[in-house]
Amino acid sequence: MSEPGEHRPVYTAGELAGLFGLTVVGDASTAVVGVATLSDAGHDRLAFLSNPKYRAQLAATRAGIVVLAAPDAERAPCTALVAADPYVAYARVAALFERATAAPAGVHPTAYVDPSASVHPSASIGAHASIGPRSVVAVDAVIGAGCVVGEDCVVGTASRLVARVTLVKRVRLGARVLIHPGAVLGADGFGIAMDAGAWLKVPQLGSVVIGDDCEIGANTTIDRGAIDDTVLEEDVRLDNQIQIGHNVRIGAHTAIAGCAAIAGSTHVGRYCLIGGGAGIVGHLDICDRVMVTAMSLVTHSIREPGEYSSGTPLMDNRTWRRNAARFRQLDRLFRTRGTE
Amino acid sequence: MSEPGEHRPVYTAGELAGLFGLTVVGDASTAVVGVATLSDAGHDRLAFLSNPKYRAQLAATRAGIVVLAAPDAERAPCTALVAADPYVAYARVAALFERATAAPAGVHPTAYVDPSASVHPSASIGAHASIGPRSVVAVDAVIGAGCVVGEDCVVGTASRLVARVTLVKRVRLGARVLIHPGAVLGADGFGIAMDAGAWLKVPQLGSVVIGDDCEIGANTTIDRGAIDDTVLEEDVRLDNQIQIGHNVRIGAHTAIAGCAAIAGSTHVGRYCLIGGGAGIVGHLDICDRVMVTAMSLVTHSIREPGEYSSGTPLMDNRTWRRNAARFRQLDRLFRTRGTE
Amino acid sequence: MSEPGEHRPVYTAGELAGLFGLTVVGDASTAVVGVATLSDAGHDRLAFLSNPKYRAQLAATRAGIVVLAAPDAERAPCTALVAADPYVAYARVAALFERATAAPAGVHPTAYVDPSASVHPSASIGAHASIGPRSVVAVDAVIGAGCVVGEDCVVGTASRLVARVTLVKRVRLGARVLIHPGAVLGADGFGIAMDAGAWLKVPQLGSVVIGDDCEIGANTTIDRGAIDDTVLEEDVRLDNQIQIGHNVRIGAHTAIAGCAAIAGSTHVGRYCLIGGGAGIVGHLDICDRVMVTAMSLVTHSIREPGEYSSGTPLMDNRTWRRNAARFRQLDRLFRTRGTE
Repeated sequence: MSEPGEHRPVYTAGELAGLFGLTVVGDASTAVVGVATLSDAGHDRLAFLSNPKYRAQLAATRAGIVVLAAPDAERAPCTALVAADPYVAYARVAALFERATAAPAGVHPTAYVDPSASVHPSASIGAHASIGPRSVVAVDAVIGAGCVVGEDCVVGTASRLVARVTLVKRVRLGARVLIHPGAVLGADGFGIAMDAGAWLKVPQLGSVVIGDDCEIGANTTIDRGAIDDTVLEEDVRLDNQIQIGHNVRIGAHTAIAGCAAIAGSTHVGRYCLIGGGAGIVGHLDICDRVMVTAMSLVTHSIREPGEYSSGTPLMDNRTWRRNAARFRQLDRLFRTRGTE
Repeated sequence: MSEPGEHRPVYTAGELAGLFGLTVVGDASTAVVGVATLSDAGHDRLAFLSNPKYRAQLAATRAGIVVLAAPDAERAPCTALVAADPYVAYARVAALFERATAAPAGVHPTAYVDPSASVHPSASIGAHASIGPRSVVAVDAVIGAGCVVGEDCVVGTASRLVARVTLVKRVRLGARVLIHPGAVLGADGFGIAMDAGAWLKVPQLGSVVIGDDCEIGANTTIDRGAIDDTVLEEDVRLDNQIQIGHNVRIGAHTAIAGCAAIAGSTHVGRYCLIGGGAGIVGHLDICDRVMVTAMSLVTHSIREPGEYSSGTPLMDNRTWRRNAARFRQLDRLFRTRGTE
Repeated sequence: MSEPGEHRPVYTAGELAGLFGLTVVGDASTAVVGVATLSDAGHDRLAFLSNPKYRAQLAATRAGIVVLAAPDAERAPCTALVAADPYVAYARVAALFERATAAPAGVHPTAYVDPSASVHPSASIGAHASIGPRSVVAVDAVIGAGCVVGEDCVVGTASRLVARVTLVKRVRLGARVLIHPGAVLGADGFGIAMDAGAWLKVPQLGSVVIGDDCEIGANTTIDRGAIDDTVLEEDVRLDNQIQIGHNVRIGAHTAIAGCAAIAGSTHVGRYCLIGGGAGIVGHLDICDRVMVTAMSLVTHSIREPGEYSSGTPLMDNRTWRRNAARFRQLDRLFRTRGTE
């Protein structure tokens, strides 16, 4: 999508090798103007091979350069850049070609900033955004269009709320936090107590604290704590549509895929990987380096690093119906056969 | 809910039969002023019978007209309109009675349109909506209150963003696309690579392309592609709270029920039906005409049309606990019994 | 987080006992200025013990007062307030210390109110909120920043839309309804009919009716009915990211945890508890006092109160793989062994 008069960066294989510590196999003068997939790349694009599912596409690629691991280099039909981790190397190269638009410093004429709020002159407040009483927007922070920052919030240095993000109240973001549209941080936790036949709301008095370098996906929700705060340590990465209950604590460098949910007061360790749609019930402790596969339900604390799963395999519906019906009879089978 | 001075349309069974190719059984002069359910309809309303679960309600209905299939006609206690597909026929009739409010052409005084954007004079831009640099809003398009259309987006002819929809960047919508509130199209895909103990963000450079006649539900999210675009072909129908990962491609006429999720780079065929809460992991190929039942998890590519399922049946908790505990012992049972 | 000049309430154990009918065990003059957890509380805070998981923390607490049940009183190292239900008693005490900011009456200068709408002078309309034609905002209601209230809606007395909530059209809220950010009420239900190879949209003509004292979580969606309305009776409590399909009816005092989904036309009884991520398919009847555990799928109507479950237990992935593979062979096992 080249536009008239637009400046496009150009890099040779040799330059990229120098920038990122890669090894050139082939013609170091091969030049590219962007990235593409193995299957779609033309001669002026760089592609990468990391997931073995796509290895078969290597031989036929028309890319100018491919970033790959050493064992694949000899099969490349073009210039190769050999990397210890091709996906990491690709990410660094791709960042060179990213056409990010800098948000303009200052407050958009349609935005509203409460007189008691403090917005750094280098920060950007977008159209129809509002910043509540006593909130602070730090150096180089970006509050995109339609965001609502409530009272007593802090948006740290160079953090970015893309658009239509809500920080309800007393939410504190570290530096370089990136939050995608529709995310809601600091809504009341789900605290109710049955009292004489009706629900009594339990006051939610804590808030949400987000560490440096976290990323929070579109329409993800992180509830405020009931008493203490809900906490994400640094470099936690959340995909879209995730639900984090009140008083959850998530350790540094943990990544959680879309639609997962963690119920109240559960603590998740560092370097965990939680699969899409997985659920973790409340009041559990999950240790460091735990992987949970997609759509599994965690109902007890986990003390040992490793991979955990629940569920049954996919089958054609007819076969599934037959087997699933037998699930009802499992205990009887075991007991009648004396296999306990 | 008739209001004073409001004009209400009236149709007779004979007129409806003529408009939609139906057959009248009974009095063709029976007139109705709206639609209702079999159980609630009065003599001036039209009801329909399609789902056999509601067949028992037919005999007692007080509706003036019932749309139904031929075998049910003799049981109707009122005028019947016989249709090959009663649900389709009902939908056409109901559209006659829909009281849609036309959105006024022009830009609401509280909206913001970037000077470089192009909004057709027939289009409607609602309260507190914003249209970013170089975006195009075509003939008869409607951008509802609180929508955020970022830079370089295209909203096609007669497409409608109901309210509080976000198109992040370079999102392109075809004609007659309908998007419900809270949906987010074009947020970054979840691309991260572990690099020396911390996550490195992989630039997300593609965008989202939506074909003609697609419908996208409330709070659904469709991520921008990592390199290529995420694509919905024409007439794809997405319910609420669905998550579509980066570089997913969904074939024409596929319908997906609420809370389903499709992970990155998976391709779903045409005329598929994905059940509510179902999950499809990344990098798979699902062929045309696949049905996935509710809350099933698809972990491998599907090459044959048909219905697929995973999970176990619902039981009272006590019975379930007993059987679920045996699931842990299944492999041992098979091995000790030599039934492999 | 005491601020200069801020007035903080102080209560003694004796005063709290008098207010809420509790029994003091220990020094009735012990005073507290707020609440805290058992593990974090200092001498001027009140903590509570309700969940037995935290009983071990009682002996070491440094709290000034602990609210607890009678059998735990003798183990309290401090003043105890004995309650029949410690969680309920805690909720009442905590409400005394809640620092709620009253929303200012009147319409924010950046908000938009249609001339035909009716907003009570005591109501508060926040920044960038919009109120559509003929909608009514009652006494003491609060419409937070960025909310979109469409046409012909009613927001009842003292109801509160926290921020960025959407009421699409003809949505009617009772009194004291609390709706958290990102929730969408009244989007079209998912009604489509296949007609000659393409989807035909079935008009969605009903709306949404919410009873008094309901609470609706962040990014939850409640669709408008196809013909009749979608209904929540009074005191229904919905957590975040829940999906309620068209024409669902939920009985009074039912509570539903995050990410659950209820498909169209299903009726859920009173005093039900639906676990997180649970799914209920369409057109079912669930009777009163049904509990569904987390991530279970309900595929048939439930006529008996009680607890219901589906799914399999969590295991380490290797063990799970072995057992899950056997699930495919279950029916064959039963048939070859003649255990039917």
